[in-house]
Amino acid sequence: MSFQKLDELCHKLEALEHALAILGADEATHMAVGGGEKRAEAMGALAGMHHRQATAPEIADWIDAAGNEDLDEDQSLALREFRRQYLNMTCLPSEFVERQTGARMRCEQLWRDLRAKGDWAGFMPALDGVIRLVREEAQLRADKLGLDPYDALMEQFDPGNRAADIAPVFDELKTFLKDFVPEALAVQEARLAKRPLKALSGVYPIERQRELGLAMMNAVGFDLTHGSLSVSHHPFCGGVPTDVRITTRYKTTEFLSSLMGVLHETGHALYEQNLPREWAHWPLGRARGMAVHESQSLFVEKQLGRNPAFWQWALPTVEQHLGEAWSMDDILPHVHHVGRGLIRVDADEVTYPLHVILRFELEQELISGRMETRDIPEAWDAKMQAYLVLSTIENPADGPMQDVHWPGAAFGYFPSYTLGAMMAAQQWAALTRAHSDVNEEIAQGNFETVNAWRRDNIWSQGSRWSTPELMERATGEKLKAHYFMDHLKSRYGA
Amino acid sequence: MSFQKLDELCHKLEALEHALAILGADEATHMAVGGGEKRAEAMGALAGMHHRQATAPEIADWIDAAGNEDLDEDQSLALREFRRQYLNMTCLPSEFVERQTGARMRCEQLWRDLRAKGDWAGFMPALDGVIRLVREEAQLRADKLGLDPYDALMEQFDPGNRAADIAPVFDELKTFLKDFVPEALAVQEARLAKRPLKALSGVYPIERQRELGLAMMNAVGFDLTHGSLSVSHHPFCGGVPTDVRITTRYKTTEFLSSLMGVLHETGHALYEQNLPREWAHWPLGRARGMAVHESQSLFVEKQLGRNPAFWQWALPTVEQHLGEAWSMDDILPHVHHVGRGLIRVDADEVTYPLHVILRFELEQELISGRMETRDIPEAWDAKMQAYLVLSTIENPADGPMQDVHWPGAAFGYFPSYTLGAMMAAQQWAALTRAHSDVNEEIAQGNFETVNAWRRDNIWSQGSRWSTPELMERATGEKLKAHYFMDHLKSRYGA
Repeated sequence: MSFQKLDELCHKLEALEHALAILGADEATHMAVGGGEKRAEAMGALAGMHHRQATAPEIADWIDAAGNEDLDEDQSLALREFRRQYLNMTCLPSEFVERQTGARMRCEQLWRDLRAKGDWAGFMPALDGVIRLVREEAQLRADKLGLDPYDALMEQFDPGNRAADIAPVFDELKTFLKDFVPEALAVQEARLAKRPLKALSGVYPIERQRELGLAMMNAVGFDLTHGSLSVSHHPFCGGVPTDVRITTRYKTTEFLSSLMGVLHETGHALYEQNLPREWAHWPLGRARGMAVHESQSLFVEKQLGRNPAFWQWALPTVEQHLGEAWSMDDILPHVHHVGRGLIRVDADEVTYPLHVILRFELEQELISGRMETRDIPEAWDAKMQAYLVLSTIENPADGPMQDVHWPGAAFGYFPSYTLGAMMAAQQWAALTRAHSDVNEEIAQGNFETVNAWRRDNIWSQGSRWSTPELMERATGEKLKAHYFMDHLKSRYGA
Repeated sequence: MSFQKLDELCHKLEALEHALAILGADEATHMAVGGGEKRAEAMGALAGMHHRQATAPEIADWIDAAGNEDLDEDQSLALREFRRQYLNMTCLPSEFVERQTGARMRCEQLWRDLRAKGDWAGFMPALDGVIRLVREEAQLRADKLGLDPYDALMEQFDPGNRAADIAPVFDELKTFLKDFVPEALAVQEARLAKRPLKALSGVYPIERQRELGLAMMNAVGFDLTHGSLSVSHHPFCGGVPTDVRITTRYKTTEFLSSLMGVLHETGHALYEQNLPREWAHWPLGRARGMAVHESQSLFVEKQLGRNPAFWQWALPTVEQHLGEAWSMDDILPHVHHVGRGLIRVDADEVTYPLHVILRFELEQELISGRMETRDIPEAWDAKMQAYLVLSTIENPADGPMQDVHWPGAAFGYFPSYTLGAMMAAQQWAALTRAHSDVNEEIAQGNFETVNAWRRDNIWSQGSRWSTPELMERATGEKLKAHYFMDHLKSRYGA
């Protein structure tokens, strides 16, 4: 029986994915410094085994034959998602993958070296090589999938997302933010004029911050029997659904950024921990995609963690662990701080979408060939000036050289960040329509209603639906910009 | 080229071994409690992939063909060891392996349950099933390898070890210990009569004990850029040569057993860290076997760590970390404590060999069929009475039910422990013949001469020689009982 063969293959692939996930998390947290070379070698070999096994030609026959077998509903869904994944993984001939991997790795290395020096001229030829190959990749994927080239790239990260649907939503948001960013800044200025920002800086031992983080994770729903919190240089959420590894980093002089980071990763972790266990070895049992994943992390970080109701409950917990009795008026100006800046990863939720929209627009130009690599710095600067009144023309390190995505050949990924933020706002709106008193529960540290809604509508669905379908089923409508805009207005507006 | 194919296969197998080693260490140290089921599933699948790839039938052809190729010396050695490993791994038909794995796993589970209850009668039938299969296994291996059945079992753990060579050495040691154990106990009694044992118990925070352990590891030669120290329920040395994971467990009221455990695991770790890197992906680059590995751990724990010269250097380090100024007369009676007991793993270095010889003798009877499973308790009791003046007939939990080895089907393994202790003593004797002032260096905390000798003679040799050959090349003679006996006499004798 062909479905049986696919099922067995899924178990093998899951084992390799398990190994890669744990080895990856271990590398960032517990590995001895001298262990990196062999670890890279081992992970490369395991990834190669995974790719070979996942893309073997006979699988195409199994998929076809399984379609004629007597499958139950779960098996039919599993087959459909397996077919989608197989198609996406076999779009590219292996000689192309090798060529691209080499170019990408060289460009990433060069980026690490030259970003620090702001050397665009030295970096440009390597990036240009990557972009030429991504154009080729987009065309190869487009031909196989019957999609536009840029959509074919996005399809890897968020199945069903199409530029034609996203562009108008992003345009609406961009138009709104053009006026709203100045408004939010003015509101902030006026508030600070009345009550200056109170520094939250004392000395907070790492062990106490860790206990605070664990208490918050636990309250928000993180299952500590199926996951853990460690330290790494860059915070991440990794591991496997039965053992989710989240990390943070600490500064003893400042606790809030670490804590908000823990809440963000906890959002990712809740999604992983609550995926349907009975589907775990099938692609069907995985998280839907990057935008939905980001919607879950941003839901916890922004919709919950920066919600004043949350801090009514959280402040006594903070006091218990750090010994500081801050008031709502002390903490909220930090939690809701807005500012224009050059760096995407440092941006607040008001200005962040403009960083993403800039990249989304440039990526489409680059992939279509309407723009060349050498033109990036000027185009970047022009958009930064228009959207955030900042110039990067003299500072490429903090302009088009700031992200690893492009040297890493990950085009079509950036939209996920802002789509995630918008989805989180739309999910919150749907949740509060159904449960109008949810803020009172949150103010009590009770997240049961919140999590039950998310479990039913998002987590339990695995990869059953495309990204837009999942959103529409969960919230009753397609992605709309106004939920996120309303969210910003009510939190930051005049 | 066939050697090239074997070489590539070795890289793939190394990657799977890397994953299994790190996943195994991670499971005992950092895994979330709820992650165990999926971890077992993943490791089972990876081990299956490893076994299938390592035993594929076409490898036999590659090995044959590679023998006719133009190989350099390292490649020839690598081929020879690869052939040996392939032969040992393909001795058993896979239907047999499946049957045995099932029986073994059931018996291990039953053992965990029934050992606590001391229920020999309930346990016996399952153990009998395992022993019948081990007899079959021994015969299958013997036929393929042209060895006696018990030797064919030992060959998995210590290539080249033969019962006909070991039995006379063990007999000599047994005869010696029969008189020597009472002598050592009398010496101890006389000493304690003059100076009662001083308890070393204060309260020693785990973090301080950890720092002390790390300081000792570092001094003895553990490379902290290629390894780490963690906590686990059962201490072990795991991981990979470039990232060796050792573990210990702590009691805040007692520091010595944890510290001696750290030294023991450090001995294993030094071997792994100093294996020839250029051979790392070949079987040739692995540690020689269990007895040699145990000789390295016991060398550090017993020859170094219980050597009075070591404590001249160590006491100030202990004081620095724990704040206790003990004298040599305080510490040595603890380090050199001797006592008869029922439990092998708790035994001191004087009585330990009797536990092993008892098992070695019974195993040979069981494998040959001269003894049946039902006769074990009486035979065990008779030998315990004869060797250690203790009876286990009413207490099977602390008699033949105390070890996991037999329910786990690991027959032929026990001799390695005492062979390791004897090898360590013989290595120490060879080292001190070449460097008569090594104790003065140790008393200064200088282990360079010690480690240079071990690196040249043991560590750098990987699996180049059989176990007896390695010993003979390192020490100039075959394994002799008298080095270990002399060691015991000088440390514990009248």
